[in-house]
Amino acid sequence: MRTEICERFGVEFPLFAFSHCRDVVAAVTNAGGFGVLGAVAYSPEQLERELSWIDRQVRGRPYGVDVLVPGKIDRSVADPDARLLDHVPEVHRDFVAHLFTKYGVSSDKTFTAGQAGPPASKADEIGRRVTHSGATGLIDVALRHRIGLIASALGTPPPEMVDRARAAGVPVAALVGTVEHAHRQVAAGADLIVAQGTEAGGHTGEVSTMVLVPQVVDAVAPLPVLAAGGIANGRQMAAAMALGAEGVWCGSVWLTTEEAETPPVVKRKMLAATSLDTVRSRSRTGKPARQLVSAWTKEWDEAPESPGPLPMPLQMLLAEGALTRIGNAAESGEPGARELANYFVGQVVGQLDQVKPARQVVYEMIEEFATAITRLTDLTHP
Amino acid sequence: MRTEICERFGVEFPLFAFSHCRDVVAAVTNAGGFGVLGAVAYSPEQLERELSWIDRQVRGRPYGVDVLVPGKIDRSVADPDARLLDHVPEVHRDFVAHLFTKYGVSSDKTFTAGQAGPPASKADEIGRRVTHSGATGLIDVALRHRIGLIASALGTPPPEMVDRARAAGVPVAALVGTVEHAHRQVAAGADLIVAQGTEAGGHTGEVSTMVLVPQVVDAVAPLPVLAAGGIANGRQMAAAMALGAEGVWCGSVWLTTEEAETPPVVKRKMLAATSLDTVRSRSRTGKPARQLVSAWTKEWDEAPESPGPLPMPLQMLLAEGALTRIGNAAESGEPGARELANYFVGQVVGQLDQVKPARQVVYEMIEEFATAITRLTDLTHP
Repeated sequence: MRTEICERFGVEFPLFAFSHCRDVVAAVTNAGGFGVLGAVAYSPEQLERELSWIDRQVRGRPYGVDVLVPGKIDRSVADPDARLLDHVPEVHRDFVAHLFTKYGVSSDKTFTAGQAGPPASKADEIGRRVTHSGATGLIDVALRHRIGLIASALGTPPPEMVDRARAAGVPVAALVGTVEHAHRQVAAGADLIVAQGTEAGGHTGEVSTMVLVPQVVDAVAPLPVLAAGGIANGRQMAAAMALGAEGVWCGSVWLTTEEAETPPVVKRKMLAATSLDTVRSRSRTGKPARQLVSAWTKEWDEAPESPGPLPMPLQMLLAEGALTRIGNAAESGEPGARELANYFVGQVVGQLDQVKPARQVVYEMIEEFATAITRLTDLTHP
Repeated sequence: MRTEICERFGVEFPLFAFSHCRDVVAAVTNAGGFGVLGAVAYSPEQLERELSWIDRQVRGRPYGVDVLVPGKIDRSVADPDARLLDHVPEVHRDFVAHLFTKYGVSSDKTFTAGQAGPPASKADEIGRRVTHSGATGLIDVALRHRIGLIASALGTPPPEMVDRARAAGVPVAALVGTVEHAHRQVAAGADLIVAQGTEAGGHTGEVSTMVLVPQVVDAVAPLPVLAAGGIANGRQMAAAMALGAEGVWCGSVWLTTEEAETPPVVKRKMLAATSLDTVRSRSRTGKPARQLVSAWTKEWDEAPESPGPLPMPLQMLLAEGALTRIGNAAESGEPGARELANYFVGQVVGQLDQVKPARQVVYEMIEEFATAITRLTDLTHP
């Protein structure tokens, strides 16, 4: 395929693959797409190692890095000396402890009973990855590698990030859930807009891909737009491009690939889930993010005793700590922990029912895309 | 365009237009699409008049009729002697009276102060339109006309309805929001499935069009599928067909046409609304239906003193009565009534910003559809 996006980003097929797993990123890039590594899962040192590994795998083929820079987060992170875990209220810690008891989650080597999160210094580092300075630290690492894209998955990229990327000749992409966000991202200097519908996994808005994409395409023209949300096969990719997108950005579809490091319990839940089994919930990060429905989301969102989620990044710290412990307990077979376990995923989870290599997902998408276009052409020019 | 749907339904373009307004139905049919009249707005006698009028306008061109036959409704309607309004609890009447007072809604000729709905006998007739026998009564009227389709917009069509339609050689369509519903509708004898995403106006599920349509297409093959939800322009129609649909079913886009009988206050709200200004709420009918956000939906869904909506059809009776009074007050310029006024509409409301003749909407959709397909073809075969 020869589109402007293909030429500009050096890909054969305008399929951008978001993943926290380096193996997925490398596999998609090597199959002719464009892998994007979610950097927020890593410290700067870890990110350096992941990107060096990817460099060796892709040997010059293009890939990118994605950070989170939310506009509004808890003000505690503004104080560089603050210990973030001290800002998690007692009632929230107690609720997590209550969930551990209610669901019979045992302690493990990493987390002792009653302790709901990572150690304080680690928590501070993790929590600050979503601040401007934290994201810029990750971007500095990324720019030492031959990356072809920096993406801001949440919030407007800070001017320093745009300036550094520009100086390095690296385009900046930004994910948006509304037309208003799109205008703001263009003003902030984004080169590529990813219009992401509510059906997407992770942080997402309320407007569906079908409705959002044409509006964003019209609003930011002539900037190119990728479509995200609800795209996991070739027909959906063709639909996204019929809406005016120049390519697609997919995340969920990789979670059930062979390469994905999705915990086995969660992967099995995903393979079994229907498209009704996701929910937009603030219970993992403090901002609305689509994920598998589980006892975790139900307790936080519906239980009368729930204190309600904290702002980002405090809820993220609390939840990731607790869910790591829950994940370990779930993998060791504890039924209560299995009920609680979940992960970010979009409504396409209902069509994911087989574990496949990421490369095969790409090839099947290319083939189904071509078939869909041929069918459309035949319908209109019989 | 020559598709199976076009040949089977005798249309030039596989665009099905749902409307409660006969002028829209006739205009779309006469422009080469297929108009479908929502019968639940009418008594059998009224429906007879509307269809006779349409017959004269379309002179043999194809149109259809749509009914609601929800699976679960309040059991009070099962008793033919029950006065439905007697089943509306005092607390719900009081809440409506409280809203009238809070928003300063004055009484009008139709409804005296404190009276929240239509007279009892009228209410009983309206409430029973959504029962099997009520819907069958409407269908009997419809089958005396030269209709080309009967659609069940909510719930599985009762066997009598399918049998009568079949005997008359009229295909039966059914709207579905999940794959499970689709299987149930096929078992009930539907000839055509309308897969409707959560972004649609009116009664709708949780899964987006982008995700739902391919799953339903695969589940009911070889039955044809129309896509609904999020479709109001030619790019969206092309996208729907890329997903595997054989055509589209649109409702919201007609509400701001010249022909639509949408009350002026509501029409202006729709023209001004963004795609964020809708909500799936049970406050109009008792079942989740997407509509404009207004003080009405906020009060029912969020106010601490709200008793919560009643089951269908009781909430429908209570709400339609109250909203008729609110509508009259809004049109006469009362600001509180304007805050409350709303109507069913999908997320595409954000792209409706001009009043146009329905015919023009059809022609623009055809043209943009062709452009979108040409663009896709050029992308893949440069």
